[in-house]
Amino acid sequence: MFRYQVVENAVIALVESGALGVGEKVPSLRTMATRMGVSLSTVSQAYLGLEAKGIIESRPRSGFFLRESFRRIPLPSRAEMSLEAVPVSRNQLILMVLETVGSREQLPYGVICPSDELLPGSELAKIMIRICRERPAELLRYETVEGSLDLRRQLAFRSLDAGFESTPGDYLITSGCLEALYISLRVLTRPGDTVLVQSPTYYCFLQLLESLGLRAVEVPSCPGRGIDPDDVARALDRFAVSACIFSPNYNNPDGSLTPEEAKKRIVELLAARSIPLVEDDIASDLHFGPRRPGTFKQYDREGTVILCSSFSKTAAPGYRVGWMTPGRYREKALEVKATTSVSVASPGQMVLAEFLASGRYDRHLKRLRAAVALQMRTLRAHVGEYFPAGTRATDPDGGAVLWLELPPAVDGVAYFHRAREAGIGVAPGAIFTTRDDYANCVRLSAGGVWDERMKDGLRCLGEIAFAMATQ
Amino acid sequence: MFRYQVVENAVIALVESGALGVGEKVPSLRTMATRMGVSLSTVSQAYLGLEAKGIIESRPRSGFFLRESFRRIPLPSRAEMSLEAVPVSRNQLILMVLETVGSREQLPYGVICPSDELLPGSELAKIMIRICRERPAELLRYETVEGSLDLRRQLAFRSLDAGFESTPGDYLITSGCLEALYISLRVLTRPGDTVLVQSPTYYCFLQLLESLGLRAVEVPSCPGRGIDPDDVARALDRFAVSACIFSPNYNNPDGSLTPEEAKKRIVELLAARSIPLVEDDIASDLHFGPRRPGTFKQYDREGTVILCSSFSKTAAPGYRVGWMTPGRYREKALEVKATTSVSVASPGQMVLAEFLASGRYDRHLKRLRAAVALQMRTLRAHVGEYFPAGTRATDPDGGAVLWLELPPAVDGVAYFHRAREAGIGVAPGAIFTTRDDYANCVRLSAGGVWDERMKDGLRCLGEIAFAMATQ
Repeated sequence: MFRYQVVENAVIALVESGALGVGEKVPSLRTMATRMGVSLSTVSQAYLGLEAKGIIESRPRSGFFLRESFRRIPLPSRAEMSLEAVPVSRNQLILMVLETVGSREQLPYGVICPSDELLPGSELAKIMIRICRERPAELLRYETVEGSLDLRRQLAFRSLDAGFESTPGDYLITSGCLEALYISLRVLTRPGDTVLVQSPTYYCFLQLLESLGLRAVEVPSCPGRGIDPDDVARALDRFAVSACIFSPNYNNPDGSLTPEEAKKRIVELLAARSIPLVEDDIASDLHFGPRRPGTFKQYDREGTVILCSSFSKTAAPGYRVGWMTPGRYREKALEVKATTSVSVASPGQMVLAEFLASGRYDRHLKRLRAAVALQMRTLRAHVGEYFPAGTRATDPDGGAVLWLELPPAVDGVAYFHRAREAGIGVAPGAIFTTRDDYANCVRLSAGGVWDERMKDGLRCLGEIAFAMATQ
Repeated sequence: MFRYQVVENAVIALVESGALGVGEKVPSLRTMATRMGVSLSTVSQAYLGLEAKGIIESRPRSGFFLRESFRRIPLPSRAEMSLEAVPVSRNQLILMVLETVGSREQLPYGVICPSDELLPGSELAKIMIRICRERPAELLRYETVEGSLDLRRQLAFRSLDAGFESTPGDYLITSGCLEALYISLRVLTRPGDTVLVQSPTYYCFLQLLESLGLRAVEVPSCPGRGIDPDDVARALDRFAVSACIFSPNYNNPDGSLTPEEAKKRIVELLAARSIPLVEDDIASDLHFGPRRPGTFKQYDREGTVILCSSFSKTAAPGYRVGWMTPGRYREKALEVKATTSVSVASPGQMVLAEFLASGRYDRHLKRLRAAVALQMRTLRAHVGEYFPAGTRATDPDGGAVLWLELPPAVDGVAYFHRAREAGIGVAPGAIFTTRDDYANCVRLSAGGVWDERMKDGLRCLGEIAFAMATQ
């Protein structure tokens, strides 16, 4: 992260903590430079950036001030919910939302993969070109069902950062994270079985459950605390659960982080009942703080935690390269993979294996994390400016999704359609649950690079919310 | 195809038709040149090639002779079979066979994709390099669930060659042909349903049926005539069939071609009972004759024929790019795709779309067809030389698989293991059926380029057969 970005973040943090009230004066260049141990020019670069982002304004001969329009945004309330097992059916709406995936027209507040500018397009292209020159034939060869050994080796190296040790043989390369989850459920469940998920949870999980004829029990996911082990215990006591799908780190959509202690307890609870846990780890590398959060997998002693992830949200969505650690279900998982898509496309695996081996992936992740963190805060600050009073927003420590709770009068699905007509993609709250919760919620993506277009789009989203809130 | 290859084929045809007996004199250079309207040098190039392949030998001052060792090989007998619905379970053996897929050690008589030399590696690499330079960001973008519009447009253009008209909207791009078949079965069947297949049929189809908990009814596939509509009618009368999976053109493994009239009748039979037909069209572009055979799809009036194919056997196995025409099941098919692998990797789709648009794919197919046809005949000729009496072999008009019926004493599975120890991959007959037929059969691939190594490998396979036949 560049020095000036650190300063920008510091100022936005002041706003969010309430330490800097609307209309108040931002610390002077000199004060800030001393406080943060950076040069005056760095601070002025940061302040000019914040001004360009419309967060602060300079007044002649009196310095910078937080713009009047800014307010603090409270956290969304935790859904009060009773536990019930519901056959999943949300598909029509979800398919409509999915249409925005890959659509170039919509302003990308709906899709959660980083925009082109944040992806290592030219770096990966360089590697691809070299492979095209040196090993053209290999690009056309079938990869094995398990996937590229070079790539699995790199994943094994990296697993230490995620808190557990592994070998290349522990991995199965998949077509993105969703195929990993799909294979997990094919291996772990039969139609009619019950699966535990978070609420809210990623709508693709619900769609997957529906297409496999499974029932969902939702345990609350709290923006502040993630999953509460007591909720899990309660659900396990009441239902015959075949498997769980949890996203402990920066859950999509509420961005919640489940604390390490809770992770440990949840794994123990499930192990005691030998119930497998499918861990969605896809957002963990997008931590805004210095350290990557831990995983369920690191507490797994039985080989019953299947960690699933991919490069789709950090490096190459279009490559469709993900992975899973099938643990004790490996043979069955290989069988499902061999009978659906056989193996993952070779070019993406070859390029990513070299990208990781070169160490450039880690350098890229550093830049990406800084950019997403800054965007998240900018986005959040502007939500405070553009959206009606009564709007609540999450304050995630990582990931690229911002979860908004709009005033009760706003129906999220109607809001989605209005935004769509305005050429802006958003994800309505209703698709993140099998229940009737989150009707007035929407999920925004912080993956797009902040520019005038995105700013105007957000202003437009705010206006739609105003209009609907006061109807 | 080069002139000299035409001459080589003509000579091998003489052998196979029996017109040229073992030890007999091959037509003189001059006779052949006049008969075929080519130059003397072309004929001598062909004869030297045939001598190098060990098919003919030159005798000083008396010309070329068919080597003593050659015999004609009869066609395999058609399996006499009673119809029954069998829950599929062949998996362990199949998984062992699948290990040879992607394995570099085994001599590739088991895998049926063309060897590197026959694939357009450098042509596709050139296109990939240009795309990397011109549109690096696009390579990383998610493709839509349906798949690349450019590629679907090309497929629509080509469908006329396959005998039917289509639009880009009729296609869904999949991870190879197998995912297309998988999606078809997910859409058309429920666990416990019964599916009609050919016998013998591609083992991956059976593995797919097993993993989806389906039952198979096998109708005989005759090397000479393919599928007999009367057999289909009989099966439909006896069983509640949910769907059929047929490979009318160059069925893997028996290479059989179902005649146009039979195709038409089968489609009518099924339409009358509104039973969907999944058509595996993957081998059709590998026709040895001048014209591509027709499809079931061209007789489809109800939108109940799902044609499935891919580029894996003709251009780029490792790209994992296939397609299907889901017809009236389109929405459900999109839903299954969206909940398993979401979309197909972008790089392969982009490169293939340009390859097709440039017209180079067709030029490549011409070369590939000629090469595979020549290898098939060379392979067949040497089977006659190396394998014990009583061996039968198919004589396909297209495709890259040769189906051998070994002497009754030879057990195909034991044969597979002996060959594997010798470092040669073959596919044992038993995995191509749910029944106990084809125990003494093996499938050889004609996809490898013929060279000393392949020749020694085939000789070794013959020796193993000799040893096991006389045990």
